[in-house]
Amino acid sequence: MTDHTSAILKKHEQEMEVRDYECDMADGVNNSVYYNYFEHARHSMLKAGGIDFAELARQRIGLIVARAEIDFKRSLVSGDKFKITTVVRRISKIRFEFSQEIFKLPDLTLIASAKVIGLPIDPSGKPKLTPDLEALILPMLSEVETA
Amino acid sequence: MTDHTSAILKKHEQEMEVRDYECDMADGVNNSVYYNYFEHARHSMLKAGGIDFAELARQRIGLIVARAEIDFKRSLVSGDKFKITTVVRRISKIRFEFSQEIFKLPDLTLIASAKVIGLPIDPSGKPKLTPDLEALILPMLSEVETA
Amino acid sequence: MTDHTSAILKKHEQEMEVRDYECDMADGVNNSVYYNYFEHARHSMLKAGGIDFAELARQRIGLIVARAEIDFKRSLVSGDKFKITTVVRRISKIRFEFSQEIFKLPDLTLIASAKVIGLPIDPSGKPKLTPDLEALILPMLSEVETA
Amino acid sequence: MTDHTSAILKKHEQEMEVRDYECDMADGVNNSVYYNYFEHARHSMLKAGGIDFAELARQRIGLIVARAEIDFKRSLVSGDKFKITTVVRRISKIRFEFSQEIFKLPDLTLIASAKVIGLPIDPSGKPKLTPDLEALILPMLSEVETA
Repeated sequence: MTDHTSAILKKHEQEMEVRDYECDMADGVNNSVYYNYFEHARHSMLKAGGIDFAELARQRIGLIVARAEIDFKRSLVSGDKFKITTVVRRISKIRFEFSQEIFKLPDLTLIASAKVIGLPIDPSGKPKLTPDLEALILPMLSEVETA
Repeated sequence: MTDHTSAILKKHEQEMEVRDYECDMADGVNNSVYYNYFEHARHSMLKAGGIDFAELARQRIGLIVARAEIDFKRSLVSGDKFKITTVVRRISKIRFEFSQEIFKLPDLTLIASAKVIGLPIDPSGKPKLTPDLEALILPMLSEVETA
Repeated sequence: MTDHTSAILKKHEQEMEVRDYECDMADGVNNSVYYNYFEHARHSMLKAGGIDFAELARQRIGLIVARAEIDFKRSLVSGDKFKITTVVRRISKIRFEFSQEIFKLPDLTLIASAKVIGLPIDPSGKPKLTPDLEALILPMLSEVETA
Repeated sequence: MTDHTSAILKKHEQEMEVRDYECDMADGVNNSVYYNYFEHARHSMLKAGGIDFAELARQRIGLIVARAEIDFKRSLVSGDKFKITTVVRRISKIRFEFSQEIFKLPDLTLIASAKVIGLPIDPSGKPKLTPDLEALILPMLSEVETA
């Protein structure tokens, strides 16, 4: 009779450090650089799972970003170390949602969070998930079980 | 007796052109570059209204971005010309929402759209709208009148 | 009996404007951005002569940079308008030297100058100038005549 | 009676990894990114010696780059790991020359080399080396002794 949800989170963690040239006039990391940080963490996760973005680009297929939402909470400054956590869920047949957070190290202050919707496209630019690519993505997904 | 809404849109338009070094492995403009394009258009609008970001940075006050949502529809490639439209509305005492769209020229294909929430902060980093800054922002706002 | 040299300079000029996100902590344009400005001017010159870098990249052939020297004289700040002049000379069978200067507008203050050595490579990465590419480059060259 | 030169090299080493978003249409790291890599290595060396660029920027004094020469030998691609070596020498009362090399790991293939001339400026933009700054720089210098 109990209704409980247990999530099996497969969380990818990526540690990075702010470089001086990523900071802007106001001394903080330029907002568009956070976008790059999140992208780098997603690519690292996908590569760790066997997906090679450079190779996909050469084949003219890829995982593109359809939508990105970023909430900026605090700012990193030059020299700060931080980690990015990434969890990915399937939200439709061909759409995947990456939930990501940047935490400053060592105190784990939340700096920014993002939700990014990605989907695979074929060489003509149409959304399409090949069985090969699906086989690589499935093991990365966090699952939500309801019992 | 009629209930109609008429919006007075003060739309800012910015024309730009893609540079080769803004394109990535897949030949298209890197997603984080669109973020920069949108920022450039917002800053141009604010500058046209008398707000100088570099000067604000020197005074340690500024308009920061609290949240950004971007929908990527199509991709620009090197050499493409495009325009960015920006409309800003006040959504709370100190929060402003910029609605922005990138259209490829000359055919006006929609490339990407964004909603960006900005707010002013004082030198200590706390949200605060000075009367000086408010006086500069008010004339830029699009108003919605209900009659 | 007189020995005089007359140069036929085919000078390419490119006007640009500094964007806020190109400026760094010290308020000026980050040095690596000047590198991008020079590259954009070279590509614009080459495109005006019929050479398409994106297309060359797809064919896996291209004009690569072998060496770049930049002298930084003064700094541009956000909003500055400037022009880049580019002159190209052939310095060996397959090597071309671009002499470039950035001048702030409207007063034409010299901001930075560069000498960039470019050469074409074939798909295997070896230096090679195809007749097609040579035919496109020759009309751009500044010539020095001695009489 | 022997005439020999022994250099006391104080070589700084910085390990880094190419990120996907640093690569361009031709799949390799965009040339301007190497400029950023070299800058990051110089700043890391200076920081390790007690010099804080962000702090200098806030005081409106800094070490600026007057000239940069880069030779591009080979290209790095996404995911490559590499190290940057940096050696600095004093070449005049206020000018310092950084000799830098990028080597791909683990095979130590030479990717690019640079000579960068830096000098300190005061808040008015004039070259000036304060005793404080000199005291921090001197211990980093490589010396050449002739006996």
